[in-house]
Amino acid sequence: MSRVRVGGFSISLDGFGAGPAQSLDAPLGQRGRELHQWIFGTRFFHQMTGQAGGSDGVDQAYAERAMRGFGAFILGRNMFGPSRGPWVDDGWTGWWGDDPPYHAPTFILTHHPRDPIPMAGGTTFIFVTDGIQSALDQARAAAGDLDIKIGGGVSTVRQYLQAGLVDEMHLAVAPVVLGQGENLLAGLDLPALGFHVTEHHPTADATHIVLTRDAGRPA
Amino acid sequence: MSRVRVGGFSISLDGFGAGPAQSLDAPLGQRGRELHQWIFGTRFFHQMTGQAGGSDGVDQAYAERAMRGFGAFILGRNMFGPSRGPWVDDGWTGWWGDDPPYHAPTFILTHHPRDPIPMAGGTTFIFVTDGIQSALDQARAAAGDLDIKIGGGVSTVRQYLQAGLVDEMHLAVAPVVLGQGENLLAGLDLPALGFHVTEHHPTADATHIVLTRDAGRPA
Repeated sequence: MSRVRVGGFSISLDGFGAGPAQSLDAPLGQRGRELHQWIFGTRFFHQMTGQAGGSDGVDQAYAERAMRGFGAFILGRNMFGPSRGPWVDDGWTGWWGDDPPYHAPTFILTHHPRDPIPMAGGTTFIFVTDGIQSALDQARAAAGDLDIKIGGGVSTVRQYLQAGLVDEMHLAVAPVVLGQGENLLAGLDLPALGFHVTEHHPTADATHIVLTRDAGRPA
Repeated sequence: MSRVRVGGFSISLDGFGAGPAQSLDAPLGQRGRELHQWIFGTRFFHQMTGQAGGSDGVDQAYAERAMRGFGAFILGRNMFGPSRGPWVDDGWTGWWGDDPPYHAPTFILTHHPRDPIPMAGGTTFIFVTDGIQSALDQARAAAGDLDIKIGGGVSTVRQYLQAGLVDEMHLAVAPVVLGQGENLLAGLDLPALGFHVTEHHPTADATHIVLTRDAGRPA
């Protein structure tokens, strides 16, 4: 059966998954790029951005695993774009250009209906207005036997964690402190939600941690 | 001039510096030992506990640096013992036996006066009832040119951090989640307090992080 995973989710030492003051110029928030330093050197990121080379090794392995092989993705609206409120016909089709890195049905949580947007490379953005369980049900139907990725942002991941719907979460803990922003872990009791650490692979740019939820222990 | 440092302070991935339910049997709280796994294998810890051998390497270097060479220590009362309220003559002289690992004047923050307790090996426990600044002033006078260590627990470290009195903090982030307990980082904006990460050395059992406060940037 397909599993629901969070993958390649970068946080600071103090738990922040995005810096403060997200904007069009800084979609990750101020200093957000520092969280993702581990990925920029990888072969995966080089390929994705049309560059030659890139590193192999632990960061590369986690980057691959965080993006490849999923049958569907679920994103919060802010991951898709900076606009708020009812959708307007502004031509926006996400941060990623014509060929987004998803290559699968990608469900966007929103309060405002919108028709699906088919993109190149197999990505289709599908807008879901009736909540996280509905989005997951639709993603399961689309994914078949493949896993489903909860892509973020912080608020979306927290909602799925608190609902007991996440089976595995890979965090990349960056060696920085942010002090402000959206905190992924604040007030979450991960052991009480059934999670324990099953992998721990530190690198120069991040400490990779995989948390797995015990079978039969939903929230 | 001597510096004020936090050293060898172990926290979980979710920021907890001690597990819940601290007791005489579990002075670190439930699961607290998991936080400190990095230290138990070191040569430093083997020496401290009268065992032969122990590892060299990164964990050992940070263990040494976390305990050796200080001219004075400051501890919260709960670090000294499990009792609460006015001191009673129960013969308690700390968790550590006759020869505590401090080997220097060690100031205990308390609301209840008590005469100093001289111990073997150069440790003297001195009880301070007039607050963290007074304890630091006394520690500075005692330490001379040597550094002063804020030994813990969580509440004591947070008070010194928030008052802008800590120059350097070494954290050992253990690959575990606790979910409950005393959170070291919750609600603290370390960058706003002038801190940034100046060292990052991951090992199999912990990610060692040193945060340094910019000169001239007290809180």
